[in-house]
Amino acid sequence: MREPFTYPNSAEQFKRAAKVIPSGVYGHLGPAEGCFIPVEAFPLFSSRAEGSYFWDIDGHRFIDYMCAYGPNILGYNDLDIEEAAAKQREKGDCTTSPSTVMIDFAELLVDTVASADWAFFAKNGNDVTTLAVMTARAYTHRKKIVFFKGYYHGVGAWTQKIDYAGVIEEDVHNNIYVEWNDIDAIEQVFAENKGEIAAVIAQPYMHGNFKDNELPGAGYWKRLRKMCTDNSTVLIVDDVRAGFRLDLAGSDHYFGFEADLICFCKAIANGYNVSALCGKDFLKNTVSSMSYTGSYWLSAVPFAAGIACIEKMKKLDCPKILIDKGTKLKKELIRAGAEYGFNLKVSGVPSLFYLRIANDDSLMLHQEWVAECVRRGVFFTNHHNHFINAALTDADIAETVDIAREAFSIVRDKNPE
Amino acid sequence: MREPFTYPNSAEQFKRAAKVIPSGVYGHLGPAEGCFIPVEAFPLFSSRAEGSYFWDIDGHRFIDYMCAYGPNILGYNDLDIEEAAAKQREKGDCTTSPSTVMIDFAELLVDTVASADWAFFAKNGNDVTTLAVMTARAYTHRKKIVFFKGYYHGVGAWTQKIDYAGVIEEDVHNNIYVEWNDIDAIEQVFAENKGEIAAVIAQPYMHGNFKDNELPGAGYWKRLRKMCTDNSTVLIVDDVRAGFRLDLAGSDHYFGFEADLICFCKAIANGYNVSALCGKDFLKNTVSSMSYTGSYWLSAVPFAAGIACIEKMKKLDCPKILIDKGTKLKKELIRAGAEYGFNLKVSGVPSLFYLRIANDDSLMLHQEWVAECVRRGVFFTNHHNHFINAALTDADIAETVDIAREAFSIVRDKNPE
Repeated sequence: MREPFTYPNSAEQFKRAAKVIPSGVYGHLGPAEGCFIPVEAFPLFSSRAEGSYFWDIDGHRFIDYMCAYGPNILGYNDLDIEEAAAKQREKGDCTTSPSTVMIDFAELLVDTVASADWAFFAKNGNDVTTLAVMTARAYTHRKKIVFFKGYYHGVGAWTQKIDYAGVIEEDVHNNIYVEWNDIDAIEQVFAENKGEIAAVIAQPYMHGNFKDNELPGAGYWKRLRKMCTDNSTVLIVDDVRAGFRLDLAGSDHYFGFEADLICFCKAIANGYNVSALCGKDFLKNTVSSMSYTGSYWLSAVPFAAGIACIEKMKKLDCPKILIDKGTKLKKELIRAGAEYGFNLKVSGVPSLFYLRIANDDSLMLHQEWVAECVRRGVFFTNHHNHFINAALTDADIAETVDIAREAFSIVRDKNPE
Repeated sequence: MREPFTYPNSAEQFKRAAKVIPSGVYGHLGPAEGCFIPVEAFPLFSSRAEGSYFWDIDGHRFIDYMCAYGPNILGYNDLDIEEAAAKQREKGDCTTSPSTVMIDFAELLVDTVASADWAFFAKNGNDVTTLAVMTARAYTHRKKIVFFKGYYHGVGAWTQKIDYAGVIEEDVHNNIYVEWNDIDAIEQVFAENKGEIAAVIAQPYMHGNFKDNELPGAGYWKRLRKMCTDNSTVLIVDDVRAGFRLDLAGSDHYFGFEADLICFCKAIANGYNVSALCGKDFLKNTVSSMSYTGSYWLSAVPFAAGIACIEKMKKLDCPKILIDKGTKLKKELIRAGAEYGFNLKVSGVPSLFYLRIANDDSLMLHQEWVAECVRRGVFFTNHHNHFINAALTDADIAETVDIAREAFSIVRDKNPE
């Protein structure tokens, strides 16, 4: 049996952080979001990262299934990406006139992503989901936006809930919320809001937090696509989280349809800071007419990294590798759980699998098990999908399953059937 | 006399860009914004940058007074900043748990910026101006925001004008617009909206585009600060553009007051991609309660670069250097203009000076002169403030004035008095 990790250095540094940073560590990397339960089981600060691992400041190595919550797709500090970035950095990064590497990157995306006739670059997922919604409103001269319950499209007030701090009624006044995978419900929304819906914004499948992830039902996307076309509504796919882990041509392509606008970020440049809105020709002039820019948006280094990342992903057939690795892991985790009487439910596409021990609706058993995994060097979180990266080896998977089995055994001992 | 530059490569690459990128080159780096008139006088793509120069893809070197529109404050590819960034990059950048370098950076900002009790990091200026406004609304439970005409606070719909593409009435419904430097006008706004104003958001002085920049009148900030306090309204200073070029302790400190929230970006890390909202203790819990994060936001390399940048700026007393250089340039440009009968008006703080030839209200003479400067290797733009960086030498200033004089002479020949 392994000795469970403790994190005295993390705890001490968190105290320092809490003095000068709201929440200490905020957002999905921090304990306040609710995925780190119990918080004592999780490291809070890393000292270095390489391949599929990171090391925390207490000296523990973790097999990392969060991948910086998506950006790490080829492995941390991938040499090809780092070399491309370094080469560009010597010439220039954030300069008064942009480098033509921006054009190269746009051409590569147009070439790679099936629904892309053009690309517009920014920095956050939120930058491009916001631009997508504004573009749809500008193009249609309509206001209403349809969201699917369980969605996450960033942190702009327009995409938050009315009871969230800082959000006012006007921000969300034109939002309509529909259940995912319920074709009658969305049909009814279109019927009740005839000629008023600017856009439908959706993740390629429901990969929300705190619940099993849900793939689209048979024919769902095809019918939804047709509904948008028939109603002259812009169909926006938010591929920020799933992008390049299902299909390099876009997750819409994976599910057999084409978005009008598709949002990328996270895995697009293996951790280098860039996002992209891609779209159809009929929306290009609208985007050109908008006032939308920011500091560093045309910086060259992330474009060079993005080119290297997409080229390497193509060469590797990266989504297939990730789905295969995820499928193998999924099968073995389920089997290991069953050995101890646990019904481990693994949902979503295996390259971004979501975990839940279904024996217990309170999720307490699940949280116990995740905590025991983390304390032994497998970084899972409780209520968020996970991410596979291409540097993950068969040995890593074997070690993960071994630790998971040990964790199942410990949780079983504490909670006899 | 110098041979004026031409840009066949830029023109050709722009055609490529326009096929796959809306507007070709968008935002303030592109020709569509209206600062590049006539567009043929300006390079559109750079091949490399170093110190105070960038080189375009037609082989011309420019003395760069735009500094990537602010980020370049110590000189492009500054060795100290690059070394700090490289050292961190080897360990890790965008990882599942953040590095403690985030805490070091927050502590340094709290130590440096007079009004900062804490720091919250993001990626764009727009991220932090948006967070500031949401924080003010969450804290005060009020909706209205006061803006000063000529403002720029990013590209969120809440900060755009109602006639901009993609903006709907609800986005700007609670916005109030007041003339800068008119104390009676702002007093009246407070009187008419008693208990309803969540925040006043202001740049430290009016450095808007398309008009002479305007410093605060005597006692203006003191009275405005008191008005906010008396009305329990949050005072937000948007120091994204001016930050660290007036005073390392914040531009509010430069003008003798303290903001409740202050927004930084651009010059904070010499081009590395990070922004920060700093603020007072009484707002920290409110920020902690908000749902606000993004991909890459806790990446370590920009924090390491930011620390190196602020430490070097402190060592150099950077704002003083920049203001001195700007003052010298300003005097000599004005003198050179006068030799040819031009009344060159230089407004704003000299480290981010704004230029206008005041002989001609149509601004045609001004645009002609700027074009002749650019065509000879001095990168000015027409209707936006400029930026000084610490790598700018006396020889650069002398060459700038020499080229400016030649440009004045050419414009005078074409437009006899």
